[in-house]
Amino acid sequence: MAQPKSMRDLLIEELRDIYHAEKQALRAYPKLMRKVSSDKLKQALQTHAEQTEGQVERLQQAFEALGVAARGKLCHAMEGLVEEAKEVMEQDLSPELMDAALIAAAQKMEHYEIASYGTVHAYANALGETEVAKLLEQTLAEEKQTDELLNKIAIDDVNKKAMKAA
Amino acid sequence: MAQPKSMRDLLIEELRDIYHAEKQALRAYPKLMRKVSSDKLKQALQTHAEQTEGQVERLQQAFEALGVAARGKLCHAMEGLVEEAKEVMEQDLSPELMDAALIAAAQKMEHYEIASYGTVHAYANALGETEVAKLLEQTLAEEKQTDELLNKIAIDDVNKKAMKAA
Repeated sequence: MAQPKSMRDLLIEELRDIYHAEKQALRAYPKLMRKVSSDKLKQALQTHAEQTEGQVERLQQAFEALGVAARGKLCHAMEGLVEEAKEVMEQDLSPELMDAALIAAAQKMEHYEIASYGTVHAYANALGETEVAKLLEQTLAEEKQTDELLNKIAIDDVNKKAMKAA
Repeated sequence: MAQPKSMRDLLIEELRDIYHAEKQALRAYPKLMRKVSSDKLKQALQTHAEQTEGQVERLQQAFEALGVAARGKLCHAMEGLVEEAKEVMEQDLSPELMDAALIAAAQKMEHYEIASYGTVHAYANALGETEVAKLLEQTLAEEKQTDELLNKIAIDDVNKKAMKAA
């Protein structure tokens, strides 16, 4: 796209960024899951990976509603987040510490998505694009729920086990 | 540091990551502010930049309480976030659209910090490091407040002006 000239252009640019980010996340989740030991954490990540496929579909619906092609644009931030997760996975950690470190990496990815969907939701609302706003609001709510669930698993389960194991 | 062998090591590693991230953010804020037109947004970023200096000091206090040197470790995620902000700043946008795009970039940086401080706060609590936990809790609350303030400025002010100007 040329330089954005309107809020609509800005919305489309930002949708392309999160579309690419979600696809990067989708590729990263199975790798994360292979390193996870906690059943609760594995289950939460599995559920979220399935949810993410639905979120990618919602983005495609949003592009369609806006009458533009569904395509991504390189998201440097998610690239950095995935790189950070990769560094964690390459460490030689006990299974309990690995879980505690992976949950942190996953929550950082989650927070990128919360910020991004918050933005596109606000842009769509400002534009009066109610159908698009509704789609993005659903995803934003899911991302926040996932983050809260990961918080709970970290505090109630994973971090406690990591303390005992050390 | 060698591979983390305990929750304490993991906490220190993560503190080094956010310490580096905050320093990267501190270097980025003045560049962002130079591109901002909205007085409200400029004021919010100025206040947050000053707050960030206090947050860096709190991290130094946390390192001291843990008896380790205050030093950072390259944070790829914040590097990606700053790169993304830089791409926004290099675009040829109207002042109103630039503000709307910059607020999004700032909120993404904010959310990285929220995720990271959430993690180190949980680790410090699990370890019974109450002094450290208290320091990190203060910063976490500030980061969340900043994000909420930016949300409000985006929705009530910046996005509306961007709509009118386009």
